[in-house]
This record gives sequence, structure tokens and C-alpha cells, in this order.
Amino acid sequence: MAAYDFTSTRLFVDDALAEGAEVALGDSQANYVRNVMRMAAGDGLLLFNGRDGEWGARIAEVAKKRVVLVAERRLREQTPPGRLRYLFAPLKHARLDYMVQKAVEMGASRLSPVITRRTQAARVNLDRMRANAVEAAEQCGVLAIPEVDEPAPLARVLDGWPEGDALIFCDEDAGAGDPLVPLVALRGRPVAVLIGPEGGFDPEERAALLRSPSIVRLTLGPRILRADTAAVAALALVQAVAGDWRV
Amino acid sequence: MAAYDFTSTRLFVDDALAEGAEVALGDSQANYVRNVMRMAAGDGLLLFNGRDGEWGARIAEVAKKRVVLVAERRLREQTPPGRLRYLFAPLKHARLDYMVQKAVEMGASRLSPVITRRTQAARVNLDRMRANAVEAAEQCGVLAIPEVDEPAPLARVLDGWPEGDALIFCDEDAGAGDPLVPLVALRGRPVAVLIGPEGGFDPEERAALLRSPSIVRLTLGPRILRADTAAVAALALVQAVAGDWRV
Repeated sequence: MAAYDFTSTRLFVDDALAEGAEVALGDSQANYVRNVMRMAAGDGLLLFNGRDGEWGARIAEVAKKRVVLVAERRLREQTPPGRLRYLFAPLKHARLDYMVQKAVEMGASRLSPVITRRTQAARVNLDRMRANAVEAAEQCGVLAIPEVDEPAPLARVLDGWPEGDALIFCDEDAGAGDPLVPLVALRGRPVAVLIGPEGGFDPEERAALLRSPSIVRLTLGPRILRADTAAVAALALVQAVAGDWRV
Repeated sequence: MAAYDFTSTRLFVDDALAEGAEVALGDSQANYVRNVMRMAAGDGLLLFNGRDGEWGARIAEVAKKRVVLVAERRLREQTPPGRLRYLFAPLKHARLDYMVQKAVEMGASRLSPVITRRTQAARVNLDRMRANAVEAAEQCGVLAIPEVDEPAPLARVLDGWPEGDALIFCDEDAGAGDPLVPLVALRGRPVAVLIGPEGGFDPEERAALLRSPSIVRLTLGPRILRADTAAVAALALVQAVAGDWRV
């Protein structure tokens, strides 16, 4: 029997997880385990549900239409949800999938599509976003699936902004200096990172952002970054200075 | 006549650039300007060649097989080449394209494919890598195309490592602490960032890396990052702490 290790298949399930709990996989996960991973009774894998931590489990039964697992032991305790929100102007199709995956890897705990004047994508497929978030969470080892918000216009997001939460705005014109200094003051506060559309915010949107008392301006250097690159770069700086990369 | 602004088409050319210099575009760039961008005589665009800075130019002639530009004035002086080398285990196809584009956006000045034991891609198409680097440079506004090295085995890279150059190794086991502290000591030094293959380095490779006197270990947090995510994250931290994001 294989041990549970970092190469293990890792699945998100809805069921409660406890010692001896049986989990019957749904069609698509059962198909994955049986036909893609070609796993058999006795093989080990990892389960998490966002509530009970991460569990080592073993396959008890593989039938034609049915895969049953038994949870054996808790390997990691559930941790409190992160407080890193990622707000972004949705891109189209594959690039949006990619952006969601990256944000989850970088530890975003809440994904908020924001509609701006230059946003490319008129509609957002939330089911697809959530499926991408689940897949990324399974692969990168986080213990909870990020919350996925309905898309909202930028003005409404700013109007309802929670006092005390920092809103990081990646601003080409943030000016000179050490880009990390503004982030040091965010330690211990809930933080959100806002990434605009490919064409940038329009001047009125930019002015509204700069008027918000919660805004923290962050510079990402002298080159023009694509939205998905800017997202990973900004989240890396936040995590390294004020987030869970500091231990 | 349109002014040159950040929305301008921006092209890399081989020709010398000086006031009044005529530049005849090659087939593929001529096709792009004429048929994709639908530009006409009198339209402005930006040119750079990696030596003479960035120039505002104007289209003098658009014929069926021929587009001629005239350089008008220098808008940015050539800057000295960066000293940020990016070493990476090549991925396959589209993901390699993506990785090269991201590295250029993040300011890498030299791209070095490194063959490791778990490297997925056996061959590397250097022409394709270079074409991707040119395209990314055109879009993100850098003034020079990064150098592209032939692939080399990791052991040879380590054996010939230039004394004094720091080699940043993104190490899951780098341990606790502030991830930025080791980077502060790199200010002013040539820096390289090494990103391993998706399965990580094998134990012998890892031991060889840790024995190198040039190694600087960097932690990228508690989650498992894909190689392209890790690359952007590591380059962001380096640029922000010791690179050209500090002004």
C-alpha cells in the first residue's frame, strides 16, 4: 500500500471527514480515480472538505460506477480561512481560467470579479470559475476553496468597502521609492489586491480609487505587465511582506 | 497624425536608429503593420533595436510588399542591460512560451534553459523561445531583447558559475523567517533566479545546489506553486527588494 505523500492524488469532497468515514465519490471524481489515475482498492489518497482538515484515505471499493473511500487519519488540521481577497477585471475564457488558478496558488481566499469600463468579458461563468478554483486548490494543497463572488461594478465595490480592509491598487504612477514600504503597515489587517483590465482603469475610475481611504498604492516596476502577471507579482509581494509567507 | 503614446504599436528591428533613418520592415512585420494593424502612411509607431533607445517613427510608404518607416526622434535613451538571469527547466510547448513571456515582462535579461533529471521537455526550440522573447519585449516596453542561451545540464551550469553572481534557489525547505531578508544582501550584485522542473530537483541535484557558495535560498510560502507561478513570484520579490522596482 502506498503511503500518502506529496505525490498523492488530492480531492475536494463535500462529505464530513472523520476516522472511518465512508466517502462515495461522484461521477466525475470516480471516473478520474478509476480511469485517469487507474487507482485500485487499497490505494491511498488525500481528501479535504474545507472544514475538517486534510485526511489520508484509502480506496475501499472500485466498481464500474462507484468508488468508495474510507478516511483513515487526519494529516493536517483545518486552518482559519485566509484574509486575502483578490479583485480583478475578468478576462476572456482560457486567460480567466489561468488567472483564477494563479490566484488560488498564491493564497487568495476570496475571488471577486469586478466590472470596469474597459473590462473585456461581459459575462462571467461562475460555475467554471469555481471549478477552476477547486482544481487549483486540490493541486496546490490549500485546505479551503476560496469563496467566489458574483461580478459587481467597481463603483458598488468601492461604495460598500469594509472600513479597515486595505485595498491594494497596482498603480503605474505610484511613484518612486521602495515598493515594499506601504505593505509593511498591512501586517495583521485584512488585505485585498485589485488588478484592473488590460487597458487599465479609465481616468474617472482611477480618481475614485485614489479618493478611497482604504487605498494602498503599489508599484510593480517600469515595465508593462499583463493582468495575470501583475496579479501573481502583487500577491507575491503581499504574501512575503504581510501574509503567510512570513512564518 | 497620431502621437506616439502607450497604445502605439512597438516593433523590434535590426536596423540602426537615428534621426531620419529609413527602416524597411521585413515580410512578417510589414504584414502585421499593413494587414493586422491596418496602419497607413503617416501613422506613428515605436521602434527599438536594443542599441539606440526607443524611437518614434512614422510610416513613409505602404506598398503591397513593402512598408518603409522613418525614425523621427528618440523618446527613450538606451539603458544598460539588466543583470537578472533566469534559469529554468523547460516545460512543454505553450507553457514554455508562456514562461518566456512572463520572464521578459518581469525584467529578465538572460534566459537560460537548464536540463535537470526531471525536466519534461527533451528538446528546446531556441528560435521559438527567441521569437517569444521579442514579442514580449515589444509589448512590455523593455529596450533590449534578453539573451537566450543554449540548454545546458544543471551540473555544468553549477560548475561554471561566475564567482560573485548570486543564484537564487526557490526551496520549499528554506525554512521559517522573513523571505525577503536574504534578498536585501543582493543589492548591487548580478542575480540569477533558478526555477526547477514541475517534480522538483532530485535529492542529488538539491544537495549540489546547497553546496554551491553562490546559492541564496528563497521560500515562496506554504503552497505548492506551478513552475510559471513560482517564476513570476520569485522575480517579483527580487525586483522589489534588489532590482529595478526600487527607484
